[in-house]
Amino acid sequence: MKNPEHIAAFIETRQQSIALCEPLLVEDYCLQGAAFASPPKWHLAHTTWFFETFILIPFASHYTPQNPAFSVLFNSYYNGIGAQHPRDQRGLLSRPTLDEVLAYRERVDQALLQLIKDADATSQETIEERLVLGVEHERQHQELFFTDIKYSLNANPLYPAYSSVHPEPAAQGAPASWLKYPGGLVEIGHQGQGFNFDNELPRHQSYLQPYELCSRLVTNAEYQEFVDAGGYQNAELWLADGWSTLQTEKWRAPLYWLERDGQALEYSLYGLKQRLPENPVCHVSGYEAEAYARWIGARLPTEQEWETAAQGQPATRGLDDAHYHPRPAPADAGINQLYGDCWQWTRSAYTPYPGYQASAGAIGEYNGKFMSNQWVLRGSSCVTKDSQARSSYRNFFYPQDRWQFSGIRLAR
Amino acid sequence: MKNPEHIAAFIETRQQSIALCEPLLVEDYCLQGAAFASPPKWHLAHTTWFFETFILIPFASHYTPQNPAFSVLFNSYYNGIGAQHPRDQRGLLSRPTLDEVLAYRERVDQALLQLIKDADATSQETIEERLVLGVEHERQHQELFFTDIKYSLNANPLYPAYSSVHPEPAAQGAPASWLKYPGGLVEIGHQGQGFNFDNELPRHQSYLQPYELCSRLVTNAEYQEFVDAGGYQNAELWLADGWSTLQTEKWRAPLYWLERDGQALEYSLYGLKQRLPENPVCHVSGYEAEAYARWIGARLPTEQEWETAAQGQPATRGLDDAHYHPRPAPADAGINQLYGDCWQWTRSAYTPYPGYQASAGAIGEYNGKFMSNQWVLRGSSCVTKDSQARSSYRNFFYPQDRWQFSGIRLAR
Amino acid sequence: MKNPEHIAAFIETRQQSIALCEPLLVEDYCLQGAAFASPPKWHLAHTTWFFETFILIPFASHYTPQNPAFSVLFNSYYNGIGAQHPRDQRGLLSRPTLDEVLAYRERVDQALLQLIKDADATSQETIEERLVLGVEHERQHQELFFTDIKYSLNANPLYPAYSSVHPEPAAQGAPASWLKYPGGLVEIGHQGQGFNFDNELPRHQSYLQPYELCSRLVTNAEYQEFVDAGGYQNAELWLADGWSTLQTEKWRAPLYWLERDGQALEYSLYGLKQRLPENPVCHVSGYEAEAYARWIGARLPTEQEWETAAQGQPATRGLDDAHYHPRPAPADAGINQLYGDCWQWTRSAYTPYPGYQASAGAIGEYNGKFMSNQWVLRGSSCVTKDSQARSSYRNFFYPQDRWQFSGIRLAR
Amino acid sequence: MKNPEHIAAFIETRQQSIALCEPLLVEDYCLQGAAFASPPKWHLAHTTWFFETFILIPFASHYTPQNPAFSVLFNSYYNGIGAQHPRDQRGLLSRPTLDEVLAYRERVDQALLQLIKDADATSQETIEERLVLGVEHERQHQELFFTDIKYSLNANPLYPAYSSVHPEPAAQGAPASWLKYPGGLVEIGHQGQGFNFDNELPRHQSYLQPYELCSRLVTNAEYQEFVDAGGYQNAELWLADGWSTLQTEKWRAPLYWLERDGQALEYSLYGLKQRLPENPVCHVSGYEAEAYARWIGARLPTEQEWETAAQGQPATRGLDDAHYHPRPAPADAGINQLYGDCWQWTRSAYTPYPGYQASAGAIGEYNGKFMSNQWVLRGSSCVTKDSQARSSYRNFFYPQDRWQFSGIRLAR
Repeated sequence: MKNPEHIAAFIETRQQSIALCEPLLVEDYCLQGAAFASPPKWHLAHTTWFFETFILIPFASHYTPQNPAFSVLFNSYYNGIGAQHPRDQRGLLSRPTLDEVLAYRERVDQALLQLIKDADATSQETIEERLVLGVEHERQHQELFFTDIKYSLNANPLYPAYSSVHPEPAAQGAPASWLKYPGGLVEIGHQGQGFNFDNELPRHQSYLQPYELCSRLVTNAEYQEFVDAGGYQNAELWLADGWSTLQTEKWRAPLYWLERDGQALEYSLYGLKQRLPENPVCHVSGYEAEAYARWIGARLPTEQEWETAAQGQPATRGLDDAHYHPRPAPADAGINQLYGDCWQWTRSAYTPYPGYQASAGAIGEYNGKFMSNQWVLRGSSCVTKDSQARSSYRNFFYPQDRWQFSGIRLAR
Repeated sequence: MKNPEHIAAFIETRQQSIALCEPLLVEDYCLQGAAFASPPKWHLAHTTWFFETFILIPFASHYTPQNPAFSVLFNSYYNGIGAQHPRDQRGLLSRPTLDEVLAYRERVDQALLQLIKDADATSQETIEERLVLGVEHERQHQELFFTDIKYSLNANPLYPAYSSVHPEPAAQGAPASWLKYPGGLVEIGHQGQGFNFDNELPRHQSYLQPYELCSRLVTNAEYQEFVDAGGYQNAELWLADGWSTLQTEKWRAPLYWLERDGQALEYSLYGLKQRLPENPVCHVSGYEAEAYARWIGARLPTEQEWETAAQGQPATRGLDDAHYHPRPAPADAGINQLYGDCWQWTRSAYTPYPGYQASAGAIGEYNGKFMSNQWVLRGSSCVTKDSQARSSYRNFFYPQDRWQFSGIRLAR
Repeated sequence: MKNPEHIAAFIETRQQSIALCEPLLVEDYCLQGAAFASPPKWHLAHTTWFFETFILIPFASHYTPQNPAFSVLFNSYYNGIGAQHPRDQRGLLSRPTLDEVLAYRERVDQALLQLIKDADATSQETIEERLVLGVEHERQHQELFFTDIKYSLNANPLYPAYSSVHPEPAAQGAPASWLKYPGGLVEIGHQGQGFNFDNELPRHQSYLQPYELCSRLVTNAEYQEFVDAGGYQNAELWLADGWSTLQTEKWRAPLYWLERDGQALEYSLYGLKQRLPENPVCHVSGYEAEAYARWIGARLPTEQEWETAAQGQPATRGLDDAHYHPRPAPADAGINQLYGDCWQWTRSAYTPYPGYQASAGAIGEYNGKFMSNQWVLRGSSCVTKDSQARSSYRNFFYPQDRWQFSGIRLAR
Repeated sequence: MKNPEHIAAFIETRQQSIALCEPLLVEDYCLQGAAFASPPKWHLAHTTWFFETFILIPFASHYTPQNPAFSVLFNSYYNGIGAQHPRDQRGLLSRPTLDEVLAYRERVDQALLQLIKDADATSQETIEERLVLGVEHERQHQELFFTDIKYSLNANPLYPAYSSVHPEPAAQGAPASWLKYPGGLVEIGHQGQGFNFDNELPRHQSYLQPYELCSRLVTNAEYQEFVDAGGYQNAELWLADGWSTLQTEKWRAPLYWLERDGQALEYSLYGLKQRLPENPVCHVSGYEAEAYARWIGARLPTEQEWETAAQGQPATRGLDDAHYHPRPAPADAGINQLYGDCWQWTRSAYTPYPGYQASAGAIGEYNGKFMSNQWVLRGSSCVTKDSQARSSYRNFFYPQDRWQFSGIRLAR
């Protein structure tokens, strides 16, 4: 392996996935609160299947798959690999049991570490590339683990907490200001040696008008004003599809907001808690973000605007802090909360960059085939590893999705 | 308590519910394969809630409910008691955990036994009535436990077995014959001292034409001929609603039948097994039963015909045998397989007997409110306790339901 | 033809179908307000198809069908004949045009009258049987014409009237009384020479408890009390499936009831009109009828009870009066409103009589295949021809259906 | 009125809408084959409502609306105006009749022409602006008239023709070639004095890579190869949402393609006809266009690429030719079929241009609120007026939509 740090990252990531699940009880590992919210056990198995499918099976000649059925059960959406267990039935897989899945992880890890030692030179490069991709993939699933279990636990009227230790937020929030950016001909897309997904390429030029970004994210208190002003009752503020969704889903506030006995609460990974006014509003859909921006007389940034402003800014405040909830903005000068609190909806549809080529084979299904109907989110959240956050990273979800840690950065 | 055997039955039934679950792993207790197939843990909690709600809360003045939320979580359908957790989301209740539910059971049992000792004379009669009803209710849920976990485990492509011990069937099947019954003015409905549900009353006269019943249930081999003859492709054999369901659900054979590599298999509580030709066909809907009967030139019996033929016949072959699958008919003279193999669809809609009165209060919701759109099934199955089976017992399901152990008795 | 009156009835019925449509505009002939509410033009064509399919094609050797496509377009549900145009798309058939359909009617009528003259002796009997059936069939569709166009016109916020001439009701309503019937062994089913459908046979004995029927139908004023008392908010009054339907469909009153500016209105074939308190409540589902009966401390009759009481009673007040809305009960002694105002929901599920045999061939699909999930209604309505009404007639609809002229007769 | 040509255009357009309907029969005017395919009569009334609502009601002080109910019945989606009749029930409005709608048109036209004479100077400018917008709006609905009635007539198995006169296509098709464009910093968006919609503004700079466009549209013969090669069975060619739609909708070919007795047919406004190999493939969704491009090793253009190539090219071959079907490409040098055959799917999501501002008030709902989940189509079709076609025009539909005249222009 050219870069031995990749092996260390592999080992650490594989261990961390299990460690993150530790506050759960066995009963929680199969929970699937919606088709899109996969059970913890499924995440543990699927990330393992990824290494088995894309590295062990093609390169480890003596490796026999743990169980032929796993090829279907833990295939998420790779048509190039074969059939997939229906996504909305992942919660019905009481078997393999948790212990069996942990044994599956162990067996694949051992085989993989052995392969890394044994592989011939011609295979080494691809193995290393896929190892890195598999680690990044598993880190994405660590974030999904949090968003999914939050959604699934919230389906229980007892509002169980993922963690009972709720650290107090240090900061008290900060006033917002508008930061000016000149626009012009800019460069967009990944560059340099670090890891990137294929959808961040090719790096290319783009022309921007001058623009301004808000120095921090929209807060709960600010969003509350929108709610109180009848924002959810006024069709003129909404995109047509957003208004239609609002009515079908009976949206009246962000996901996880709850009023009880006159108290403003929200469900968090720490259970049902007071809703802090100075915290960034979180778990809003793209439609809600867009409607809020229109109401306040601003707009959402494009992904090019966001990336240009973020180039060179450090990623902090993420999963490594082990604070599983967004926190108030610091009072630092310049642009804040780019990373580590909430993903930020952009007004950009998720489409291919000019000259984009998906990777060959089934791995090419990772990103490219989702390039319709989704919106780009930029930044990272409190449950993203900082090492994974970068200015060129393109996250994407449907504009109606709310279960990610998604918030609002204003532009104008 | 007038009849101390009721206390013994209570204790035995409460213990048996837990014992029946023992082959399961913790992961299995939350499985809900469909809205109608409740998780084992929910059955354990709901039956406990029944005793708590209908006996402890009204009669045990010092009793405090285990958890106010349980009143909603474990209420099945009693509008008179209050709101209900959505039926299709019972599988999302990872909490309370299995241990907590077992502790809930223990606490309610102790409080109930104490109440029986302490209750004043005026309450004793109602408490005893409800204790008996609660025991019968729990036995019904023991049967549902089997049908539901079978359905839910079958949703897993690994086809896990409830029990790995598969006793070989002793009998080799028996030829069928037609038994004649004279009809005339008969008496229908429960009589005597034993327990009965309100829907078995009042006992009343009914007039029947002379009729014949088949001496045993339709076998897999016989039903296979119907399948092979294109029974599932011929609209003229089906009730209109049945044909419509067949097309929507893509029915091509009974639930749990599977052809694999040219082998005739079926999923059972023992896993995926050979389908024995001489076994009674099981897990057919009322529509399939009715279409088969039409195809073979017969019909389904009415519930009055079935009950008249069954009066005085003993109930055997049920859950006490611990054989969780129907078995071939014995070669005994007379009518066979009335009990202990498969419930038998009748052609009777589930409607009230003349003069029927539902019990007062929320307990009256037990049976009466379901008297539309469902069909009556008679007899009992391999997972019914023999002591619960009787000739006047009216089971009822929608004609499209297939997940019960339901088979076919022909009439003409 | 043995009975030349059958020819006269054929000619008169064929003409009447067209006459009944006369108040409509061309635009109205394609209206289909719901899958179950067929357009007038479709009724005109389908009844013609019936004669063409079941008489001309099998018996008139030189007859060529008007258009091979009509075999599919105007087949309602006869699988034995072949495929059917989707029921919910009948309103999309702008072609054949109204004129073409009228020409189709004329051509089939002429061919049929010629066939009657020409047919050989061996065919005559079947032709006559089917002619009579076709006439009865068309009269049923004349009634459906009214219920369907009422439903479809009501979908228009302009509330167009079928007829602008609204005759004033003569009577002022009458008090209700209970009439006693002894029950015992009764005879049920059609007898005598008149026409009957196969589902009215065989005539058979049935045993009834003594019972009482109300002398007239439940009025709007009486039903209003149920509404005002919160009947639509009280789950305990309803069958479980009825309560579920009520919630899904947001029922708060009978179909066509409307409150506007404090006025009690209802949509009728005369447009939006005052709702007369003394008129019988109409357009209620079986669930509403059943819930009302429970609320008032009564019940719905069984079909056997109704038929026994109706035997020998004359049918009047029907379509021949050309009053397309129910009227207040007359103050006559004895049982009133059996016929000519509203069909009366019974508590009987629509199941086969003992020994029932459907007719052979596709004609056998007329009644038998609908014998599940539906309830029997007895009597007739203001848009039924009196000559078609009889005590043994079994009408049937789903308990959730409300678009027929269906009302409530109480029993106890 | 500053520009009297606007009055002439108004009069001509209003007359043409009626003239285009002339081949229809009265029965056809209410046809609504799907929620998205409005009936001809509704188009005639809605375009009238537009003038009444946005000009007469605010500016003509003595004008009384034809019928207050029309405000709801013929409001398409303007929440700022008020409630809307449900879109999927437009086909149920047999009233107002066709004659009444024509009278409504006449009355509004007269009032409008009178207002133009009478209006004071301060109102004139807005009235003229809205008159022009109303004319453009009605021309859009003339195109929708064709696409909608084609869809609705196709729902009839008789495949009625809109027009029985089918002019033979003159050209025989032409070979395709790749045309090179340099890209760089280009200007996008409307400029000049002609009419434009708000979504074409503001004109702005955009940076493009060098690119190539195909000289003509993809033909039926070329697309047939994709079908024959299993394009509809190969998930790897499709966007994930496209593949999902393909499976749900059972797509196997473009809308209106039909194989019958070994013949390649397609439904057209001339009825069911031979499918010409050299005609451009039409009525494909964006997903199909995108999958075809991937399969052939190309891609769809962005809207910026298309617009840059089209700047300065004349619009021809449209509705004025009265040829209601796409035709083979001419063999002219340079880029062909930009206009007048099929709209061309781009790979661009429909999002706001930098600095976009929707018009104020309810008119601002015209375009802006649809800027999510839709794709941009460019060019025009055989049923677009040439005078309406221009290089900056942004048409938009959901990527799953197929009932427009939409085809494929390749890029790379």
